[in-house]
This record gives sequence, structure tokens and C-alpha cells, in this order.
Amino acid sequence: MTAQIAFTVDPWCVREPELRLDVLGTTESVFALSNGHIGVRGNLDEGEPHGLPGTYLNSVYERRPLPYAEGGYGYPESGQTIINVTNGKLVRLLVDDEPFDVRYGTLLRHERKLDLRAGTLERVAEWRSPADQEVRITSTRLVSFTHRSVMAILYEVEPLKHAARVVLQSELVANEQLPMPASTDPRVAAVLESPLAPLEHDRDGNRLTLIHETRRSGRRMAAAADHLIEAPEGVKTSMETAVQENWGRVTATATLQPGQKLRLVKFVSYGWSSERSVPALRDQVAAALTGARHTGWDGLVAEQRAYLDDFWAGADVEVDGDPDLQQAVRFALFHVLQAGARGEGRPIAAKGLTGPGYDGHCFWDTETFVLPVLIHTAPDAAKDVLRWRHSTLPKARARARTLGLEGAAFPWRTINGDECSGYWPAGTAAFHVNADIADAVIRYRDAVRDEEFDRTVGTELLVETARLWRSLGAYDRAGKFRIDGVTGPDEYSAVADNNVYTNLMAQRNLRAAAAVCRRYTDEATALGVTGKETTAWRECADSMYIPFDEKLGVHPQSEGFTDHAVLDFESLTDADYPLMLHMPYVQLYRLQVVKQADLVLAMQLRGDAFTAEQKAANFAYYEKLTVRDSSLSACTQAVMAAETGHLGLAYDYACEAALMDLHDVTGTTLNGLHMASLAGAWSTMVGGFGGMRDHSGTLSFAPRLPPELKRLSFGITHRGLRLRVETDGAEATYTLTDDASTLDLLHHGQRVTLVAGEPMTLPVPPTPARPRPQQPHGRQPRDMRAGS
Amino acid sequence: MTAQIAFTVDPWCVREPELRLDVLGTTESVFALSNGHIGVRGNLDEGEPHGLPGTYLNSVYERRPLPYAEGGYGYPESGQTIINVTNGKLVRLLVDDEPFDVRYGTLLRHERKLDLRAGTLERVAEWRSPADQEVRITSTRLVSFTHRSVMAILYEVEPLKHAARVVLQSELVANEQLPMPASTDPRVAAVLESPLAPLEHDRDGNRLTLIHETRRSGRRMAAAADHLIEAPEGVKTSMETAVQENWGRVTATATLQPGQKLRLVKFVSYGWSSERSVPALRDQVAAALTGARHTGWDGLVAEQRAYLDDFWAGADVEVDGDPDLQQAVRFALFHVLQAGARGEGRPIAAKGLTGPGYDGHCFWDTETFVLPVLIHTAPDAAKDVLRWRHSTLPKARARARTLGLEGAAFPWRTINGDECSGYWPAGTAAFHVNADIADAVIRYRDAVRDEEFDRTVGTELLVETARLWRSLGAYDRAGKFRIDGVTGPDEYSAVADNNVYTNLMAQRNLRAAAAVCRRYTDEATALGVTGKETTAWRECADSMYIPFDEKLGVHPQSEGFTDHAVLDFESLTDADYPLMLHMPYVQLYRLQVVKQADLVLAMQLRGDAFTAEQKAANFAYYEKLTVRDSSLSACTQAVMAAETGHLGLAYDYACEAALMDLHDVTGTTLNGLHMASLAGAWSTMVGGFGGMRDHSGTLSFAPRLPPELKRLSFGITHRGLRLRVETDGAEATYTLTDDASTLDLLHHGQRVTLVAGEPMTLPVPPTPARPRPQQPHGRQPRDMRAGS
Repeated sequence: MTAQIAFTVDPWCVREPELRLDVLGTTESVFALSNGHIGVRGNLDEGEPHGLPGTYLNSVYERRPLPYAEGGYGYPESGQTIINVTNGKLVRLLVDDEPFDVRYGTLLRHERKLDLRAGTLERVAEWRSPADQEVRITSTRLVSFTHRSVMAILYEVEPLKHAARVVLQSELVANEQLPMPASTDPRVAAVLESPLAPLEHDRDGNRLTLIHETRRSGRRMAAAADHLIEAPEGVKTSMETAVQENWGRVTATATLQPGQKLRLVKFVSYGWSSERSVPALRDQVAAALTGARHTGWDGLVAEQRAYLDDFWAGADVEVDGDPDLQQAVRFALFHVLQAGARGEGRPIAAKGLTGPGYDGHCFWDTETFVLPVLIHTAPDAAKDVLRWRHSTLPKARARARTLGLEGAAFPWRTINGDECSGYWPAGTAAFHVNADIADAVIRYRDAVRDEEFDRTVGTELLVETARLWRSLGAYDRAGKFRIDGVTGPDEYSAVADNNVYTNLMAQRNLRAAAAVCRRYTDEATALGVTGKETTAWRECADSMYIPFDEKLGVHPQSEGFTDHAVLDFESLTDADYPLMLHMPYVQLYRLQVVKQADLVLAMQLRGDAFTAEQKAANFAYYEKLTVRDSSLSACTQAVMAAETGHLGLAYDYACEAALMDLHDVTGTTLNGLHMASLAGAWSTMVGGFGGMRDHSGTLSFAPRLPPELKRLSFGITHRGLRLRVETDGAEATYTLTDDASTLDLLHHGQRVTLVAGEPMTLPVPPTPARPRPQQPHGRQPRDMRAGS
Repeated sequence: MTAQIAFTVDPWCVREPELRLDVLGTTESVFALSNGHIGVRGNLDEGEPHGLPGTYLNSVYERRPLPYAEGGYGYPESGQTIINVTNGKLVRLLVDDEPFDVRYGTLLRHERKLDLRAGTLERVAEWRSPADQEVRITSTRLVSFTHRSVMAILYEVEPLKHAARVVLQSELVANEQLPMPASTDPRVAAVLESPLAPLEHDRDGNRLTLIHETRRSGRRMAAAADHLIEAPEGVKTSMETAVQENWGRVTATATLQPGQKLRLVKFVSYGWSSERSVPALRDQVAAALTGARHTGWDGLVAEQRAYLDDFWAGADVEVDGDPDLQQAVRFALFHVLQAGARGEGRPIAAKGLTGPGYDGHCFWDTETFVLPVLIHTAPDAAKDVLRWRHSTLPKARARARTLGLEGAAFPWRTINGDECSGYWPAGTAAFHVNADIADAVIRYRDAVRDEEFDRTVGTELLVETARLWRSLGAYDRAGKFRIDGVTGPDEYSAVADNNVYTNLMAQRNLRAAAAVCRRYTDEATALGVTGKETTAWRECADSMYIPFDEKLGVHPQSEGFTDHAVLDFESLTDADYPLMLHMPYVQLYRLQVVKQADLVLAMQLRGDAFTAEQKAANFAYYEKLTVRDSSLSACTQAVMAAETGHLGLAYDYACEAALMDLHDVTGTTLNGLHMASLAGAWSTMVGGFGGMRDHSGTLSFAPRLPPELKRLSFGITHRGLRLRVETDGAEATYTLTDDASTLDLLHHGQRVTLVAGEPMTLPVPPTPARPRPQQPHGRQPRDMRAGS
């Protein structure tokens, strides 16, 4: 894929200057709109051609059986797959009986633009029909941040040369036919056909309602659309409405002179529930439509911009010196916001609501990669995700019991909280997800100081995950606390002993649980926590075994890892990657080869547990082994490259992470955006070149710039205060914008107290010179300039 | 299951004195007849009731898809399942219109008897019909050892009180309806419905022929039956024949007076091929029938006994002091012979041809457990199995390429040579199967001195497996050759580094390959072997890393194993076993718990690699961890218990192994007999109390008896010579029965030369006293006397 040339480079938008049918699936993902509740792919208004049509509602999924050639105790029998719900985006156009289809006639102009400040997807098309009629079509689409259930479209058409009879058909369509999966990659989501059983359909004037139910999972969902048609004075329009079980249609016809526009505003609302009745759902979507009509198109547009203005004021990252990177980082932040803004107690999937990849499942990515961004830019969205995790505690407790463990065992991949992983060595065994959730709780607490959350949701999550670790690990003969037979972040190793990442994260988890129980004794007592238990947690943490290879002077990723043979990278070519599609696990697992940062991620998240020398040695060691077959790697490598002083390398990785989807680095963007890598793009700036860490409860920064960048500025929200950090590489300036506040922070290790309204400028110390670490043969950071 | 009370204890037969409908499935397996080519379960003549109807032809299987919740590179997509072929055993009886069915009327007498010297299954039934008519039915069934394609039945009926009109219906039935699997245990074979597509059916006088084809695997098979009917003089019999696509029937009717018998001899022949045409198959089964008729019933019976007389003369094991054990050991030997006698280039399945368990697959069990018995009792059958393995080399080479390895990677489970394992950590990763095959080649060579085999089949198998090991392992920094990420025999651990069993067996494999290439240089050169390659094999072998836990003074089963926490056995009850049905792998793999002998098996097969002290310490250590959830464990534990001087424990394990199926210890005998455990029963006697080993090419013995046994005598065939070993515990006598031969052997370490016709009696040294090792809580050897 070379989708990168599809887009122009602009600071505040992503623009496709001409239609590229060859990468339509990719651009649909890039142009997806979402508010975390509704997600719509950037499909053309007229529906066809498409890469993959997609409309999603957070947590509307279908169950499907998980088959096994050889079953085993505790294997989940049923999985969940996000489904393509009723499509409300469709607006078809006929010009003098000729359907507007970009594959026929002549496309004179076609431009699409995702506006990161307006929160809209705009389109302009000028088309000459096979019958030589020319029209201009403009459409603007938004999924409202302020009206959670509402999508709206403004669609306009005007003839350019001759009078034309135009027909607009605005539709709702359920159970759209989906294309066959274009890949044998097992990561590509299973496609479910006709998942929606019709319950009710209705029309009322220009209003359409379709109510359906998923066949197995019993999710009832309603979609409704209302329409405003405006024609120039004197132009007669005819309207017609039809509805059936799986589709509804409003048709408007008019004959227009050149310069005359037919204008359609389409409001679409969605609602779903596994509990509420059909009448309740019917009323819910009707109310949402009424609300949207009351606000009106211009009102929705204005609210959208105001919402985003506020977001950008606090969260914008400015990057001078690399316009591609500037665009990519804002694009990334925009999509991370879209994924979580209005989730409200629902998960953030690995692809957000931009595509069906990974079956719409939420993984550890969310807590480890996405939440750090939201915690510092949209903390309420972060809280909502953790509340969702908390709501699944009963399932996680039951899962732990099934596994013979205490506390809670959260699923590796899920939508509703039930484990959906059909391959336990890279699923159930990846217990680190539990510490990752705890880590997000700790980071949220440190950054937001939300006592009510901490006392309730936070305490229970920390306690139950700590209980898991205590039951999972054991003391060895030497009195060390070991955690054997688990899988760390690197999926090219599995079921190994004493994974350093896991053990360090579990250590943090255990200590935090003990601490929170000391703070909130009533809540702890209600959870059955005793002093003996918290003491045991602290002892486990203090005795945690962290293997170290004295001879090599590095940490083995897991015990024994550095004794394994190194994969013969020299024998491989580009076509052999990603390795899991060309080599069996039985080979990958027993060799030194790293799919994605594991020990290196431990050094980012538990930087307090390593010396600077260890970080430098470990980073160089694992660079030689890491092939980045996961999109979750480059961002972490960028951050740790920056910390260990390899700023050029950090820059290269930052570009790769930030451009993962805009350049379709993995060739899988058509299945949805890589939300964790997008979040990681922010981390490369803030955690990488900004050096931000929050290991100890005190924010620390260590700004440093690679030669390619002239200036970096970013804003974060910390404990309700807005902080802006700016550096040109020589100095760094910290500004607290809120009145009458102060903030203690560390600048390159120096403790300072920042006072609101008094920007503080401090010098950046020189970077120690070290040779640039080497990557495996052929796995250097991608040159993101190459194709653009 | 308490099937043990189904049988009486007799030295040369297994007799069921009355019909036990509650354990019908189990007795069908116990009473199965086979010659390694055809297998028929001990179903009642009249077909119903049944536990599981079963007729099998070696290597007639159907393909079936192997599904994965999450696929992976190199996962086999298609499996194989043995199918129930056309049933030729059926003989139905009607007495005055009343069908003979043991569930109706009154069964006055019912006895079945498997005669281990005659090689027949006999049945006598006296039945009072609901209409008060009494008849005696006798039947004798055999699957011929001398006519590979033939099964024959003698069926007689006589009225006991009144004249009766009897109707005999002798049938062939294809696509029998099978009962639903009675278990959710994933080990129980998938049941395939109607696997046979009809190709041709025919009748000719009393002869029936049905020809079918498996739908996917394209195995064409023919079954034919011919019938001889004899009635007393003056009794008029009517005959009738019918045939359709899936069944054929010959009916005989007569009215008999009390004391008059109607006698039916039924000859059934089977043939199959994936290559030969329908006419060729038709002729093949017709020829077999003609041959059988020519030999006649009495001739078949006589040949069967002569075949077995010869077998028992060389192979019988006499056990004085425990009649149960005596019976069980002969029963075991009989079934092992049945499984392999006429396999002729086909595999021996884990269940032989006695049931559909494990889908009819052949595992490492065959080479490691079954072949040692056949090598010393029926060497041609052993050779046939190795020839079968050799015939699958192209598939094994292709599999190695798929896995990125050199040489050949034989499948973990298969019928046709293609990997059928759908769970790679306990399938593909169990590379030891390759060394197990090599080991059988070496043992066959040492015991048989078959140069032609050694030069061709043996050399190629050793070379290709040695190549696999060299590519699978790697030298570490210390210059040791490591084999990482493999699974040993114990299935409660997987994908571990430096499994001692695997490494020692690979070491033997590598050395043997180098040696055989030195012997047969032309053949080695033809295989592309260079001096450099054989040197490399020897270096790998010499540098093989065998981990040892210095602190505990024992070998860890795999590297790091002894650092793991020990499973909390005290918390478990009987209902928690077998553990794999009640605990997830993710728990089992990271704990010290052993399903089946692994390190202990290494000490049996590579006894030369351990000191006596290590054996004693290791045995005691692993006894505490071994739960025997596999039927492949007790026999090995018995052998090593005997070697380490724990004769009472050895006796207990020997009984458990020998009675595995007669007492249905695992509750799974209805799916077929546990061929490896039956073979292991022989090993407990010969390798355990006889102490036979062949590590060095020189046979060694160390006879010792537990107090429960008064005398043990066994015969083996070694290099074409028949040797008998007899001991009363105080002395041992060695007898070579062949003329003009000598044999060097070791008796308790003392080298002696035995001369034909000069029995040598030597004293048995005293056994060192050691405390009896302990087993996990509740996992002591089963008391096989408890239920009998």
C-alpha cells in the first residue's frame, strides 16, 4: 500500500485532493468519524464503490462460536464480533435518471477533507454524467461530540451547465452486504452476514425508523433519520417516503437550473440496549432526532467546533520543522479523542469505531497506550473507560475462579467483558493486562486526583488485580516471588517465566493496592481486605524476582530469554514480514526475536526500576532483536530512544508511529485505524521529546529535540490544571495557565515549582553521545519520506 | 467404571460369565479381534444392543477440517479420522418370528470368551423368548492372522425345548448409525456420520459385495461375504439374498427340533485402496473369499492356533503368584500382537483397531512403547511399522520445510503421515517423536541385525531426524548445544527449554546417524551426507546440554522446572482428575506437576546417561509430582521403580499398567484399548522385574522379584535367537533354545556368554533397601484388588 500519497500535508486537516479508488478502504478508515458512541467509516455518500462499508455502535456486537481443533479446559466457547449496524450515511443521487457513481462518467474534481478543528468530513465532487450532464455535489458529515446519539449530513447538489432533474434518495439500510475479507490474515475480523433481525419499521413524514435485534447477543438497536429539504424559491420539489424491514428511503426530486442548489440536511440518531423495550428505543431515537433538529445543522456545526476548540486549547501539540509529523500528531490526537470522547462506560476498541479489525475488541492497548493520552487531555473519557473495566469485574472474578486463581482475571480481548481469545498462550496467559489496568488506575489517580473514583472504582480494581498476582506467583527456594508461565507484551514469546515487564507491573500493582487500602480503610474492609493481606502484597512486591543476565549486563525479557539462539535475520527478506504469517510460533517462541517492545516498554512505564546504564544497555540489546511486526512498538522505541539519548532514532520511530495509518505502514488500515499507535504518536512527542514521566506522583520532564525539529510545544491537563511545555531544544519553558495555582515538577531531574502566570524557562542539558543502536537486518525504521 | 468384575481370572482367556450391559462398550473393546489390517469390536452378533459398533480397516480414514478460533502459520487445516467401515459381523436371529435380543425375553445363560491361544472370540447364549421358546446360540469369531483380509464366523442355533422355526439373517451394513459421543472429553474421537458413498453392490448366490468410497479422502473399500449353511439331514432350509447400496442380506430359514442345529459359516473379506479401481477391488475381495472357503472354517481355526502357538512359544510371559497379573500380561501381549501382526506398511494406532479413540491416530506411543515389545516378540511386525514411517518421509520433509527446519519433522498424530494435531504446544512442539522413531530404528537394528533394513530404511530415517535436531538446536555462549522451546512427554508442561528426555534422545539420534553413515557410506552419500555433516552431528551430541539442579541434586525435567511452584495436591480430590479436564493449561504448565513419566522415561530409555544415585534421587523426586493422568505412565514408573529397588511399588504400578483396560482404570476403554499401556505391561515384566535393557547393543538383565511374585519367566527373540529368562527372585536362569548359537549378555552387570542348550543359572544380588517414594496426595498406585 502507498496510501501516503493520497493525502496532502496541512497542519489542521487531512485532505485527499483526488479520489483514489485503489486505497478506498484505507481512506475510509482515515476519514472515519466517531464520538466513541457512534462510528461511521468515511464511505462515499452514495455507498458505492466502497472498500468496506461500516457503521458501528459501541458494544453492539454479535456472539459467535469459537471453534477448536482440540479443545481444553477454560477455553472460551463464544466470542464477540462488532457488527456493521444500520447505515444512516447513504444519500444517493440521480441526475437525469443517471445514478451518480464515480466509476461512471467523468469525475472532474473530487476532494475530501477531514477538518480536525471543525470535526467534520467535507466532500466536493464535480461530475460529468455519461449523458454529459455536469453537477457539483458538496457534503459535510459530522458525528456530534455534543449530541451523543446523533450523526448529521448536509448534502447539496447543483447543475453546472444545463438544467437537470435531480433525485436525492436518503436511506437507512440494515444488513448491508459486506465484501469478502480481502486477507487470510487471522487478525482480520470475521465478517458476519445479516446480523440484524428486524423488529419494527416506521415512517412519519420525512422521518424513518428501523428497529432491529442481533440474533444471538440480543442487542436491540434503533436507527432513525429525519430530513430537511431546501430548494431555491420557485423550484418545486416532490417528496416520497418508503420503509420496509431492512431499509427506509426518503426521496426528493426537483428540476434545477445551473446555480440552483437542492439542499438536504439529514439527521440520524442511534440507540441501543440489551434491556430496554422496543417502544423505549423508538422514543429514544425520536427524542435524539428532535434534539438535533432543535439545535439545527448550523448549531451542531458550531457546537462541534466549540467542543474541539476547547480540546485543542488544552491538548494541542505543535511541532515545528516537520509538517508531515505536525499533521500526523494532530490527526492522531483527533482520532484518539473520537474513540473515547463519549464512550461513557463502554470500551475503546483497538480500532476505535473506525473498522471491524480485531473483531472490534478492546485489548490492553487501551489502558497502556490510549489512556495515558486521554488522562492528560480528556480525563473524563479516561475515567469512563476505567468505569467500564470496573463494570466487568463480576466477569473477571468469574474468569479468575475458572482459572483457579484469586481476585480478577480481566480478558485479553473483549467487548462485553467476557474473554474472547481463542489462543490462550497469547491470550489468557498474557496476565499483564491486569497490571496494565491497575497502572491506568494509578496514573489516572496521580494525574486527576479524583478521590471519589479512587475510593470506589480505583480501590476495587487495584485490590482484585493484586489478589490475582498474589495467587499467580509463588515464592521460590531463595525467597524471591516468581511469576511463571505468563506471556508478556512481546507476542513472539509466550508462556515464559518471570517476564520482567509483567513482574515490574505486578509489583507496582501490589504496592498500589496496599497503599490504597491504607488510604480507604472502610472500602478495603468492605472488600474483605485484611492487614495481613496488604502486608502479603507488599512482601510479594518487595520480593519480586527481576532476572538479570550478569554476563551480558542486560535484563532478559523473561528468564532464560538471552540464552536462546538469535533468529537469523540475515536470511530474511521483506516478504518474510510480519513473521507470524511466515513462521510458526514453535520457531518464533524459542528464538531471540521480539515482535514489539516488551522489556523496552517496561523501561518506559517502570523507568524507576532501572538505572540509566541499564536502560542504555537494554535498549541497545533489544533494538537488535525487535522487528516491529506490531504497530504497538515504534512509539515505545521512540520514547526510550529519546530517553537514552538517541534522538535521531527517536525521531525516525516517532514518524513511523505517527504515520502508521496516514501512510498505511502495515497495510491493514482498511480494517480500521491503529488506535494505540495513534495514541503512541502523542507519547513520542510528550513522553519522548518532552520526556514526560509520572513514576512517582510528581510529573517530570526532560525535553530534548532531534535536529529535524525546531520547536515542540504541548499542553496537558494535570490535576485540573492546564500546563504547556515548549522547547526549542536549547531551553524549555513551562507555563501554567490557570489562575492562582502552583505545580511542582522535575525538569531533567531538577525540582521546580511552577506558579500560574509565571512561565519558567530552563536550559536543556546536553545529550550524551552514544552510537546509534542497530536494528535487525532490514528492520531499520521506515523512511517515511520515501513514498511522499 | 468397574468393568473388572465383568471378567473371570483364567491364565489363557478372558471370560465374561454373564452379560453386563452396563459395561458393554468396555467389553466390546476387550473382546475386539484384529490382525493389524482388519479390526472388529466385540459387538454382539445381532448388532444390538451395543456400546459402540466398530469395524475398522487400517488407514481407511476420512478427512475433516481442523478449525481454529485463531489460526496461525503452519497449523494443519485438515485432520484424519478413522471411520467405521462396512459391518460384516452381523448375524441376526429370529425364533418363531421373535428377534433374538438380549434385552427382551430371558437370558438363561450368556458367556463370552476371548481365547488367547485360539485367537477366537466365543459366545454361548441360552435364551427364552417372550413367547417361551428356548434356544441355544453359539458363535465363534476370528480375524485371521494367516488370511490378512478375512474375518470368519461360525454361528449355530438349536432349540432346547420345542420345535422352532428359526431365521438367520447374515448381513453387510455400511454407514451404521453411531451413538452420540458419551463424553465431552476432547480426546474422544469425533464421530463421523455416513462416511461411505456407495459405488457398487452385488449378490451372487450366497455371496454379497458392497463397494464404497469415503467422500473426501477418496479411499475405496470393498466388503464381501460368503455363506455356508448346514442343517441336519432331512431339515429343509430356504435361502434368500438381497442387496442394496448400503446393505446386503442372506437369509436362511429352517424348522428345527430340539437338539437339531442350524449352522452358518460366514466368511467376510475386506479390501481397500486409494489407487485401485472398483473392478480390481471387487476381484480382490472375491479372491480372498475364495481363499477362505478353500481353507474352510476348520482350516482357518487350525491356522490361527498354529500361528499363535508359535508366537507364544517365543514370547510368553509366565507370572506365578498373581493370577490376575498373569492373565493381564498375556491379554496385553495378545492385543499388541493383534495390533501389529499384519499391519504391513501401515501404522499402529494408539488404540490399535479396537475403537475410534484418538481418531485412530498413531502417536509416538507406537515407537516408544509398542515397538520394543514387537521388536522382541514379532520383529517383522516392528519392521512393518518402521517401513510405514519411512514411507511418510516425503510428508515429514515437507513439514520440516513448512516449519523452517532441516531434515524431517514427523507428525505428532496421524494416520497417513500428515500432521493432524490441532494444538501445537502439545503437538508440533513435541519434536521428541522424531528421536523416538530413531530410537526404535536403533533398537530394531540392535535386536534384529537386519542389514538390508539398516542400510535403507534405517539410514534414511536416522539421517533425516539427525538433520532436524541439528537445525532445531543451537550452541549457546558456553558452547553447549541447546534445544529450546519444545515439549517433552509430559503434557502438563509445554514449550520449555532443554527437556532432558528430548535432549538425551536427540543425542542418541545424532550419534546413531553419524555411526550409520560411517557404516553405509554409499547410502549416506546418496542422501547428501558429508563428513562435515556427520562431524557436526557428533559435536552436537557431545555438546548436548543436560541441565542439572545442583542444589536439589536432581535433573529438572526441563530447564527451570524445579524452580516452579509445586501444584497444591493437598487441595485436590479424586474428582479433580484427570487435571486437564479441570484445570487450564495456563496453570498446569507453570507448576511442578507431571502428567506422565518424562524425566523418568529418559532414565529408562537412556539409562546409560544417569548414575545409579541420580536415578534414585530423580525417581523419588518425580514420584512426588507425577499424577498419572496418562495411561503411558504407570508402566514406566514400574520399570524405574524396579531398577531403583522399589520392588513393591514396581509391582503396584505393573498391576495398574497391566489391568488398565481389563479394569477400565481410565474409564475410556470403551473408545478402544490403550495399546501403549498394554505394551507397557510387557515392559513392566521384562524391563521391570527382568531388568532387560539394550543401551549398548549388549542385552543386559537384572532380574528381581517383588514378594508378591513367586516366579517370572519370559521369552524374547534377539538376533533371530530365542532366549528364555526365568527367575524365582533368588536365582535367574537363562536358556538359549536355538541350536549351535551363543549370546553375550549382562546379568546384574556381570558379562556372561550363553551357549545354546546350556541353561545358565546365576544368583540374584540383594536389593538395596530404600524408603518407598511418595506420590502426590491421593495419587498412590491404584489398588487393583479393590473391586475384584
